[in-house]
Amino acid sequence: MYAVILAGGGGTRLWPLSRPDRPKPFLPLLGERTLLRATFERVVPALLGPGDVVVVTDRRYVSLVLDELPELDRAQVLGEPVGRNTAAAIAYAAAAIERSPDDVMLVLPADHLVADQEGFRAVLRDAATVAAGGPPGTGSGPLVTLGIAPTGPETGYGYIVAAGRRPGVTGALDVARFVEKPSVDAALALLAGPAPVAWNAGIFAWRRDAIRAALATHAPDIEAAIKAAVGAGPADPAALDAAYATLRATSIDYAVMEPASRAGGVAMLRADVGWSDLGSWAALRDALVAGARAAGEPAGAVGFGARLDRGSESTLVMGGARLVVTIGLRDTIVVDTPDALLVCAADRSQEVRAIAEELARAREEDR
Amino acid sequence: MYAVILAGGGGTRLWPLSRPDRPKPFLPLLGERTLLRATFERVVPALLGPGDVVVVTDRRYVSLVLDELPELDRAQVLGEPVGRNTAAAIAYAAAAIERSPDDVMLVLPADHLVADQEGFRAVLRDAATVAAGGPPGTGSGPLVTLGIAPTGPETGYGYIVAAGRRPGVTGALDVARFVEKPSVDAALALLAGPAPVAWNAGIFAWRRDAIRAALATHAPDIEAAIKAAVGAGPADPAALDAAYATLRATSIDYAVMEPASRAGGVAMLRADVGWSDLGSWAALRDALVAGARAAGEPAGAVGFGARLDRGSESTLVMGGARLVVTIGLRDTIVVDTPDALLVCAADRSQEVRAIAEELARAREEDR
Repeated sequence: MYAVILAGGGGTRLWPLSRPDRPKPFLPLLGERTLLRATFERVVPALLGPGDVVVVTDRRYVSLVLDELPELDRAQVLGEPVGRNTAAAIAYAAAAIERSPDDVMLVLPADHLVADQEGFRAVLRDAATVAAGGPPGTGSGPLVTLGIAPTGPETGYGYIVAAGRRPGVTGALDVARFVEKPSVDAALALLAGPAPVAWNAGIFAWRRDAIRAALATHAPDIEAAIKAAVGAGPADPAALDAAYATLRATSIDYAVMEPASRAGGVAMLRADVGWSDLGSWAALRDALVAGARAAGEPAGAVGFGARLDRGSESTLVMGGARLVVTIGLRDTIVVDTPDALLVCAADRSQEVRAIAEELARAREEDR
Repeated sequence: MYAVILAGGGGTRLWPLSRPDRPKPFLPLLGERTLLRATFERVVPALLGPGDVVVVTDRRYVSLVLDELPELDRAQVLGEPVGRNTAAAIAYAAAAIERSPDDVMLVLPADHLVADQEGFRAVLRDAATVAAGGPPGTGSGPLVTLGIAPTGPETGYGYIVAAGRRPGVTGALDVARFVEKPSVDAALALLAGPAPVAWNAGIFAWRRDAIRAALATHAPDIEAAIKAAVGAGPADPAALDAAYATLRATSIDYAVMEPASRAGGVAMLRADVGWSDLGSWAALRDALVAGARAAGEPAGAVGFGARLDRGSESTLVMGGARLVVTIGLRDTIVVDTPDALLVCAADRSQEVRAIAEELARAREEDR
């Protein structure tokens, strides 16, 4: 078993803290450690040795990764010339890292929160057992995805619709289909429907041969381009540049999981482990409030940095170098950085992305 | 006629912008100009020449005053060794500045807002006419105070209770009594009562001899100490130090206006001129929102500095060097300074003072 950590760049939803030169996996959003480091320590050493971890990232961030994870050799960090979403990153890792075809490959996004580490590792072990399913060399193991119990009709997630129980591992389900980012009405209909439904966390387990076969079947252009580049040898960045220049940017969910699920080749395991994709400031606020409550700590104004609060509720303060004083706020996000300050109603934190993009465009036009 | 501008220090209600080294009169709270400069330009040149203005301030701020008001000679700025509230400052100015006894002295706090400048000057002219009332040399002119129409049972102001109309100047009333900072219930009773009631703005007009006589009658200790110090000559700071060391700190309202009103020697003129004492961040917010509405400008997020807002309401943003982005806030105060950030519910902005004092104490203890 080995783990591929996806530490992509981009992302404007946590502006002004996440910036092009230090994207979300490299931010210490939950305390001292960066999200990347926390992701690594979630599986090393309790589940894997450091030699069994690979990180895929933008070529610009390879040195950031090695700074954060000094346990890794340079060869364990795959630098993409440009981000092409998860299908390309996973195809690259599956092709470039030499492992036995029936080795199980875990895929872990580097920018999520998991509150229950022990429970998470137990689910990963079960997922690996399910994924290893087929006899060696057959390439017939299922693609396994972790499913999160929905807490509401969120429109920002993909939904997994399960079919029925799968024999063997307790709790494993066959997946009937995926529904990508539904409308609120469609999400409500899914939640009200008869079939078990879960959010797709983007955390996967599969045999190396299974994902390569699935890519060859459902996204042959991606698999072929990656194969050609990697065949030229890992030390040939020009071949990688050429391949990535032609690769389409698409998620593994769209490119592989959806068609594979229709063919009956996908399984799901529930992972009720305090997961959050930290996809907005409100999501981080919710995670920190839940953590504070679980620890019996004050949860009115959560966050980091030099802070002083009087009577705020459900408020997140990401402090910086300066003292941040908050008085009587409610459902508010405060993010303090050296060159920009965000103060935002929590229920509108999805709009941060639009602001960040607007500012980036304005900067471009100023050039 | 001449004007005494009171530019005292202290004040923690506008933390973190006001600090001991740059108190409220020296802040550009309403745009480019400081409040002191705006106070000066409210009367010069339309009502007075620059030679008819005196500023009383803490000795530490004399050079700040001269920077802001280069029209003034050094002799027009009276530096107190230490702040002893308005009774001492007014007694000092009345004694030290050589003017004819029947000259009318206007007293103008340097940290208020007046929206209607022309209307304000008209009220000052009327106040001076009322104040000049007595025949020259008699010292019998009334002490005149400006009264602001109350908008609610505010507990932070002194209340003026009028008796009846005063002959001569239209709108002038005799004052029956002052009520300093009443409870909400007492304020409501005053507002519901039969007598006309107004807030005391701390803006006065009186003959020089009238205020000196009133001080000698109602606050003889203050008048005597100041007289002794000033008698030693304006160039003797040691005498002033000695006098101020013994002076009690009390307001002119407590020391003189209250007892004088009981003796029938106080008159009031209504001043409905868009006045605010800017006594809290919420008061500044209200003033800027009113100004924006009057100018037909967007009033959702008012303030200064590099700002970007989406859909906030009744929100004040005092920006600094950095970009401040606000999204969907309501009744919120944001004050950004190089070393501290305040984010506060507007209806709790009175608590800023306690926070600032707490921080100052903590700093003291760290020494």
